[in-house]
Amino acid sequence: MTIRVAVLGAAGRMGATTCAAVEAADGLELVARLDVGDDIAALAGTADVAVDFTVPDATEANVHALLDAGVHAVVGTTGWDDDALARVREHAAGTPGVGVMIAPNFALSAVLAMRFAELAAPLFASVEVVEMHHPRKVDAPSGTAIHTARGVAAARAAAGAPAMPDATESDPRGARGADYDGVHVHAVRLDGLVAHEQIFLSNPGELLTIRTDSFDRSSFMPGVLLAVRGVARHPGLSVGLDAYLDL
Amino acid sequence: MTIRVAVLGAAGRMGATTCAAVEAADGLELVARLDVGDDIAALAGTADVAVDFTVPDATEANVHALLDAGVHAVVGTTGWDDDALARVREHAAGTPGVGVMIAPNFALSAVLAMRFAELAAPLFASVEVVEMHHPRKVDAPSGTAIHTARGVAAARAAAGAPAMPDATESDPRGARGADYDGVHVHAVRLDGLVAHEQIFLSNPGELLTIRTDSFDRSSFMPGVLLAVRGVARHPGLSVGLDAYLDL
Amino acid sequence: MTIRVAVLGAAGRMGATTCAAVEAADGLELVARLDVGDDIAALAGTADVAVDFTVPDATEANVHALLDAGVHAVVGTTGWDDDALARVREHAAGTPGVGVMIAPNFALSAVLAMRFAELAAPLFASVEVVEMHHPRKVDAPSGTAIHTARGVAAARAAAGAPAMPDATESDPRGARGADYDGVHVHAVRLDGLVAHEQIFLSNPGELLTIRTDSFDRSSFMPGVLLAVRGVARHPGLSVGLDAYLDL
Amino acid sequence: MTIRVAVLGAAGRMGATTCAAVEAADGLELVARLDVGDDIAALAGTADVAVDFTVPDATEANVHALLDAGVHAVVGTTGWDDDALARVREHAAGTPGVGVMIAPNFALSAVLAMRFAELAAPLFASVEVVEMHHPRKVDAPSGTAIHTARGVAAARAAAGAPAMPDATESDPRGARGADYDGVHVHAVRLDGLVAHEQIFLSNPGELLTIRTDSFDRSSFMPGVLLAVRGVARHPGLSVGLDAYLDL
Repeated sequence: MTIRVAVLGAAGRMGATTCAAVEAADGLELVARLDVGDDIAALAGTADVAVDFTVPDATEANVHALLDAGVHAVVGTTGWDDDALARVREHAAGTPGVGVMIAPNFALSAVLAMRFAELAAPLFASVEVVEMHHPRKVDAPSGTAIHTARGVAAARAAAGAPAMPDATESDPRGARGADYDGVHVHAVRLDGLVAHEQIFLSNPGELLTIRTDSFDRSSFMPGVLLAVRGVARHPGLSVGLDAYLDL
Repeated sequence: MTIRVAVLGAAGRMGATTCAAVEAADGLELVARLDVGDDIAALAGTADVAVDFTVPDATEANVHALLDAGVHAVVGTTGWDDDALARVREHAAGTPGVGVMIAPNFALSAVLAMRFAELAAPLFASVEVVEMHHPRKVDAPSGTAIHTARGVAAARAAAGAPAMPDATESDPRGARGADYDGVHVHAVRLDGLVAHEQIFLSNPGELLTIRTDSFDRSSFMPGVLLAVRGVARHPGLSVGLDAYLDL
Repeated sequence: MTIRVAVLGAAGRMGATTCAAVEAADGLELVARLDVGDDIAALAGTADVAVDFTVPDATEANVHALLDAGVHAVVGTTGWDDDALARVREHAAGTPGVGVMIAPNFALSAVLAMRFAELAAPLFASVEVVEMHHPRKVDAPSGTAIHTARGVAAARAAAGAPAMPDATESDPRGARGADYDGVHVHAVRLDGLVAHEQIFLSNPGELLTIRTDSFDRSSFMPGVLLAVRGVARHPGLSVGLDAYLDL
Repeated sequence: MTIRVAVLGAAGRMGATTCAAVEAADGLELVARLDVGDDIAALAGTADVAVDFTVPDATEANVHALLDAGVHAVVGTTGWDDDALARVREHAAGTPGVGVMIAPNFALSAVLAMRFAELAAPLFASVEVVEMHHPRKVDAPSGTAIHTARGVAAARAAAGAPAMPDATESDPRGARGADYDGVHVHAVRLDGLVAHEQIFLSNPGELLTIRTDSFDRSSFMPGVLLAVRGVARHPGLSVGLDAYLDL
């Protein structure tokens, strides 16, 4: 059965890319392109799923309107804090059968890399993260790298893994990078790159490297389509695409 | 409580490395080093776990003797076929509470790389495997690479993933490598290397690379120790170290 | 002094990208955009350098016309054979002071990777090449990979390097890939990639890896601009961008 | 003609590895193994080349004694400063025909990686260095990484290359690593590794990666043998193995 899809923020770059991906996908039909001022309530009964790539100021109100309309929501807009998530979780609890997926990153390779790093982390003596991005990025390290490091640290703590060995005594200029919960994170800036991350996990005699390269925003589309196809089977609020992956 | 460990094939290279690793490990005690002609039955009551790094001709008899003695077995010796595994499985069913782990590869990074590749494979448009080994290796590709490719192919088939795109029309010298169940495998031979594998998984706009490097035989020890510590909790026959990893 | 640049094939994808790059570059001025039917002779005295990204059927005639007009030529169009190069070389000898650069690849990272591989090849026991491209490519391996392998083989032969070690006895499905002059070449096809190459050089205990990634056609522009700025200093025919790099 | 080789510090780890490598090499004969207290003057007329892997306190005196004895010297001992090098240079000027090679690193892959990075650096918009070592290392970053960064910076300055783009405004924990002459250097510490370095060079649309992996001290031997074979053809003091490579 065809899934009817609406796109909110359809005129933006991510929204337009999503519209094209939905139109090209088997089993999906693009039924509405909405932008600022368009009426979300009108989607009730005409769209099964709505994808939100709007702006931080608008996205929470959009999700509440979609819940009221009984339309499943897939959200890639950033800017969600714990309070906003809690409000959506409560609202969703009152509208049984409607699913909401809010994902900070739809790139499957990035989502899997983080999850695999967490799974593997307790089994290795050392884990470090190197992220590489274009030089127009104003913050270092990337949110994804911080999220990866914290996931690694939490998994190691839960498993009782010991602290990582590090005999560094002299590092006058800070070459060892940033420390997030005991996991070192390094940020590289290179003109021409987009978004890349390497996670190194080692034991005596062996090295496991998990690397993810995102070359352009089309890399988000397989993850968006996976969420669109899965959201009806996951009522209530889900945060992070890995909630739909059986890992 | 300390786990008492015996090593079979203690004079061989892997056996000697195992003895050293057991002696250095917290919570383990090396209680016996056995070689050809030594009496396995005498381990009953004196050893909790025996590690077998002997030879293909001896290993199955060793495991049956360990089951008779009520000693858990961790086996790294190669040469097991389906019939031999079936005989051990049946024997183990008659000795409840005794565990047997037979693993073709104890390198955690290699075991995890294979498992992660299987988990990720259905989510990507293309998957290929490049293995790199020392040039004294007589077979190509490596058993691990074939195992990886077949696991990837089976996971894709189970999920209904389509065939991978490949428009190659002209390849006069076979640069596209070997095809195992639709997954291409490439074997590189480089003097100075040991055992390495790269698995590439891609979608439009993104690439996930899982790479494992084994530099020397010490790389097997974390996996051997993990099996020694876990075998008592897994009665019956287990094949492959991933059976003890919650992935 | 500003260099006046004309672009032939200006309406094509590479031509349009070149026009934009010239307009954005310091010290260069775009003075003409030519396409099929436009008069090259008219460039005499008005353009210093012409960049040709046209089609194989037209490019040789364009270069002869540019030589007649006294305009330096930078050519990225493919399809040149030895006879055509010989005719241009002879014509250029009769028009002293005019330079012609014909380059099969303007991506600096690819040009440098090939050159570095040649320089290093005699110093290593083993060298192999793995190229990775999008799966719409109809030929395997890539021309760049063949060129790399042949350069490596020639450099080793000139230095008297021994054959590479390889004990492979069993390779039933061709995992060892293609053999070009004794150098193994492997072709990987991955949806979402563009043009990538890894060259592995190893000795006992060490591995040198040279990797080049081209993400899109903008990667050719630094090389095109380098050629535009250098062609006046290199009269006569030069083939391959490395002729302008002091390596 | 066979080259007669003496090894100073023959009982140390590097010295013993050198003795074995000389004995296994074509065209070389090991004629003396010297340790503390042995008489260097006695090598006059019996050895052509001496390899010094002793200790920082002894190496300079050894080299002066070798110059007096007319024996070519290949030195891998660390601890040389500019004054000591100046004294050797002056002494060597007075003993024509005798060569001295003092190299901080004999791993060919590391030497070539540094040289290639210098050659390529002016042609790219961005260059960064990531080194990876075992966690028992007390200083960060490695001397090789600092040397690489400074070579890159000097090459860019000489060519008039602009500063690298970097819009970082927020980096609260120092993820951007160390800055050496404008080149960022990152130090990763991983249990099980030995000595590894990645140099990233990028332009819009392309990335060149030069990676060197040293797995164990045998990686120094091809460079030591190259120096032993070349030192007679290079009278006077040479510093750095790249002086013998035509790059």
